[in-house]
Amino acid sequence: MVTAKARAVDGPDQSFRKAEITRRELDKKDILIEIKFAGICHSDLHTAHGDWGEVDYPLVPGHEIAGVVTDVGEDVTKYKVGDRVGVGCMVDSCGECENCEAGEEQYCLKGNVPTYAGVDKYGEPTQGGYSTHIVVVEDFVLGIPDSIPLDKAAPLLCAGITTFSPLNHWDAGPGKKVAVVGMGGLGHMAVKIAHAMGADVTVLSQTLNKKEDGLAFGASSYYATSDEETFEKLAGTFDLIINTVSAKLDMNAYLSLLTLNGTLVNVGAPAEPLDINVFSLIPHRRSFAGSMIGGIRETQEMLDFCAEHDIAPSIEVISADEIDEAYKRVMDSDVKYRFVIDISTM
Amino acid sequence: MVTAKARAVDGPDQSFRKAEITRRELDKKDILIEIKFAGICHSDLHTAHGDWGEVDYPLVPGHEIAGVVTDVGEDVTKYKVGDRVGVGCMVDSCGECENCEAGEEQYCLKGNVPTYAGVDKYGEPTQGGYSTHIVVVEDFVLGIPDSIPLDKAAPLLCAGITTFSPLNHWDAGPGKKVAVVGMGGLGHMAVKIAHAMGADVTVLSQTLNKKEDGLAFGASSYYATSDEETFEKLAGTFDLIINTVSAKLDMNAYLSLLTLNGTLVNVGAPAEPLDINVFSLIPHRRSFAGSMIGGIRETQEMLDFCAEHDIAPSIEVISADEIDEAYKRVMDSDVKYRFVIDISTM
Repeated sequence: MVTAKARAVDGPDQSFRKAEITRRELDKKDILIEIKFAGICHSDLHTAHGDWGEVDYPLVPGHEIAGVVTDVGEDVTKYKVGDRVGVGCMVDSCGECENCEAGEEQYCLKGNVPTYAGVDKYGEPTQGGYSTHIVVVEDFVLGIPDSIPLDKAAPLLCAGITTFSPLNHWDAGPGKKVAVVGMGGLGHMAVKIAHAMGADVTVLSQTLNKKEDGLAFGASSYYATSDEETFEKLAGTFDLIINTVSAKLDMNAYLSLLTLNGTLVNVGAPAEPLDINVFSLIPHRRSFAGSMIGGIRETQEMLDFCAEHDIAPSIEVISADEIDEAYKRVMDSDVKYRFVIDISTM
Repeated sequence: MVTAKARAVDGPDQSFRKAEITRRELDKKDILIEIKFAGICHSDLHTAHGDWGEVDYPLVPGHEIAGVVTDVGEDVTKYKVGDRVGVGCMVDSCGECENCEAGEEQYCLKGNVPTYAGVDKYGEPTQGGYSTHIVVVEDFVLGIPDSIPLDKAAPLLCAGITTFSPLNHWDAGPGKKVAVVGMGGLGHMAVKIAHAMGADVTVLSQTLNKKEDGLAFGASSYYATSDEETFEKLAGTFDLIINTVSAKLDMNAYLSLLTLNGTLVNVGAPAEPLDINVFSLIPHRRSFAGSMIGGIRETQEMLDFCAEHDIAPSIEVISADEIDEAYKRVMDSDVKYRFVIDISTM
């Protein structure tokens, strides 16, 4: 058993406090990771604040984890002490259902085990990456390529795969026009990845405030959605739209921007239902779809793709004492483009 | 110019009356068709009643047309006098946009010319198939295979292609589980076609009243959606759901029946927006899509497919004097499964 230093929250309106948590003894296939960096994802806020339902407190969030292997169970074959590794949004799944067998563990029919706010196969609550150590079964540990610094690797484990997976599944690439809605943590990664895949990328953001960044990340155009002309001008343009915004948008306006057989994929998850007019879909055989992170195999592909194409998130590294302040800034969309906690300050 | 006998309606609440309409002189590529049978589609009712917006009356509905060629323009090459032919929901399109060039004239970027309640390239209002003759440019005329009787061919031109196209586009076939929502004119064709394509077909209907028919048409199972257990039992089952119902259903309940990467396609067109919860889509990368009839090439494929697989709609042939009564019965869902007007009674 390892005692880890952590930062925990005790209720929806509480600040983070120093905490100690224990990590289980290594089982045969387990890996002990010394965490070096952990990204702050908007989901962390939603969960910590109880927005998505009841939570067992104290809670240690964090599912964008990068670190180094410090011990391995006796049957571990994939990693050795000293390897640079990552952990994303899930730490286990049933391994036996058809979705797990297809390598889509995120869609495990029995439900995957989330990295925090879940319950593991030992019946223990899972606690996330705002901590110095974590124990994870090797099948849910990713290898981080040498060329990606650990601080920049962390956000790839959620923001990276959440955008890579739909871009990959719906074939973003040369000859495809892709729009990214929202220029936050997810959106800025979607722009970089879609551009690296060879697609022609347009950003649709509320304002033009981040236009210079968007173009630098690889977008060829950048439009303000507060400008009504945007929707007229871009009608019927895109093969694929990745919507990273969690607020309730006028989806029919965005659907009208799709071309024949185009798909709008929501990776943002607004709590309220969206009003979809069937007449927004029928005239051009359009689709409205959803996508959730990605499987382990695809997450490794994403990391290797980012290394090969030399892309990584744009981050602000903070100390553990700055988490509360960072949460406030995330709520104000005041981050370029992902906060990453330096776990050495824990 | 040909004078055709027709049945027209003069306003949203009016009965059908006898009328005479003129059909244009044949242009070089035009075909004159003596109509033998015309199906009654739910869209005819919506348009005649003004449900879908203002209509220029008098109106002659009908876009499920089967007949025989009686004259051809001087440059016609595809058909000759005596050929058995059909006309569906559109009689022209721009022919130049990328969708027309892709053979998807139904999605013409300039708008196709509907068979009735539209305006043709000469600036004249189009009038439909409840009439003895029609003139259509040869590219929008379909060949009816010899093995399909003309009365049964008529409904294929809308109900057939509207269901064939999404089943074809989303790859219904061996190994696929397909659900058909609604057992009306469209639904019963969807069952027959999906079964002929090799898919395993389930009908989801409000009641079990038409179960015997559904199984005879090729469904392997038949469930009542009024029974709540249906949704629990079938959760995560279908690769493809074709929703033929035009009323506002609880789409999240139906989306929950899709398996990983499954798609629910609406071919019914409810006027109200539908409430779609993103959490119905994200967990299994599901899609909600729309589809509208099919292109001319695909419509010919559908006719040839139906001939090859010996499938055709189940119909009730009526006389022209029975149209008003038939409309009432369509509104009461009291038809097995399509009314077809015998135009010789016009």
